[in-house]
Amino acid sequence: MLKIALIQQAYKKNQESTIKKTIELIQKAKKKGAKLVLLQELHQSRYFCINEDIKNFDIVTCFKKDVELWSKVAKKHEVVLVTSLFEKRAPGLYHNTAVVFEKDGSIAGKYRKMHIPDDPGFYEKFYFCEGDLGFNPIKTSVGNLGVLICWDQWYPEAARLMALKGADILIYPTAIGWFDEDSNEEKQRQLEAWITVQRGHAIANGLPLVAVNRVGFEKDDHNVLDGIRFWGNSFVVGPQGEFLAKASSDKEEIIICNIDLKKCEDVRRIWPFLRDRRIDSYQDLTKRFID
Amino acid sequence: MLKIALIQQAYKKNQESTIKKTIELIQKAKKKGAKLVLLQELHQSRYFCINEDIKNFDIVTCFKKDVELWSKVAKKHEVVLVTSLFEKRAPGLYHNTAVVFEKDGSIAGKYRKMHIPDDPGFYEKFYFCEGDLGFNPIKTSVGNLGVLICWDQWYPEAARLMALKGADILIYPTAIGWFDEDSNEEKQRQLEAWITVQRGHAIANGLPLVAVNRVGFEKDDHNVLDGIRFWGNSFVVGPQGEFLAKASSDKEEIIICNIDLKKCEDVRRIWPFLRDRRIDSYQDLTKRFID
Repeated sequence: MLKIALIQQAYKKNQESTIKKTIELIQKAKKKGAKLVLLQELHQSRYFCINEDIKNFDIVTCFKKDVELWSKVAKKHEVVLVTSLFEKRAPGLYHNTAVVFEKDGSIAGKYRKMHIPDDPGFYEKFYFCEGDLGFNPIKTSVGNLGVLICWDQWYPEAARLMALKGADILIYPTAIGWFDEDSNEEKQRQLEAWITVQRGHAIANGLPLVAVNRVGFEKDDHNVLDGIRFWGNSFVVGPQGEFLAKASSDKEEIIICNIDLKKCEDVRRIWPFLRDRRIDSYQDLTKRFID
Repeated sequence: MLKIALIQQAYKKNQESTIKKTIELIQKAKKKGAKLVLLQELHQSRYFCINEDIKNFDIVTCFKKDVELWSKVAKKHEVVLVTSLFEKRAPGLYHNTAVVFEKDGSIAGKYRKMHIPDDPGFYEKFYFCEGDLGFNPIKTSVGNLGVLICWDQWYPEAARLMALKGADILIYPTAIGWFDEDSNEEKQRQLEAWITVQRGHAIANGLPLVAVNRVGFEKDDHNVLDGIRFWGNSFVVGPQGEFLAKASSDKEEIIICNIDLKKCEDVRRIWPFLRDRRIDSYQDLTKRFID
């Protein structure tokens, strides 16, 4: 059994207090026995992609310093830690990057978000270059972590490639929410679709899956939109897509959950989907569309 | 709006009475205004793959005659009809094949099941050669039908390829059920996984999806298993995975449901997943495993 912690947070008034709170929550998670701690997407800052503004690149603190900070936190609390950072790689070249730290503070690996969204309120193509590290699980002392980020969660291809490369668990740091002006029915459909498509990846690959989302309302300071109400609902499912834990839609919370990584073996014995893939007939998956 | 009918049936005491009942139900569906009628997997017979028995090949009636029969039924009731037949292609070479008829009785196209299961009670690799027609939607007067069959429903690749080739709707004739000896919790997990993974395909591809399953208990006459309790629960979801209709787990029934094929456009505008696929990084999907 692997004890994991999901930290679902709201952005505080500034980055400093947000980071301070995150560190407190990691400490709490450690006290509860978590060996693997998962943070939400871009947890250091507000979700600045809500509009396109050149000033927002100033939000990037020094990536090297960020890495040093979280390395220390992982080491101090002896936890494997999945962070989600705004990586400046060169002037004008930025990534949305998950850095995974080993419990001794060393870098276990990193993943640069491969699928980049761009729709009203989520202008990520302006801020982030798409990842160039591919889909590779990150080897740690608690297992091979199939870390993907937010928009990736809508893509069965990403989850499948992680599974084919031996991931033990799929992990999605996320920042997704509602627009208040949508109807309750539409909000419910969106939330349920987001949960369902990810449970589908767990099932199709016989793997446990974790999604960590932010909560709270963040205003659009350009006043084009009101803002985004991040919907929380961080959750954990097992390899049959069965719920192991689920957070609220509006509260900061730590979810502590035990995951049985051996259950993958049992489930894949009764549902041996990997055995029967028609790999001779999948070559068109690398096409944009087949017209 | 396209009015469709799902016919969820139990096997009668023999093929003749089963087929007779199916034809009655198609007539009823037509009276209720259905333009597209969907039958469950291998609807002419019992689910003979419950054990491996050479005698079961006698269940194949003449494929040509079967096709003639369903062609007449489609023509008589002027419906587009999706059938699921045991196709003898040559001595010792059989397929699990969906034949789709146009409302004038002509053959619109056929699909040979690509992913073939084989696990206790579902010995399909003994009976069926895997399909060699690929994943191609079938063009009909009511739209491009992405017809797949049962085990295919666990494979995101199959649904994706149908979507990339312009399917307007995903359709799964199915025969899946419970073993009575499993716990209620396990039964619930299996049923929910089956529904969820398919809803996931609808969401990931922005397409409506229909699954038509059989009901009723069928005994294993080899007495290795007690038998299979087919779990019904035929359902229809829209392109956000939202339920439009759902059948019982134990009753024969016709589900009539309206599908708005134009909703795909609306949903794909807010969730343009096809736009952002990383086709430069998917080539390993044609590998069995990446060790």
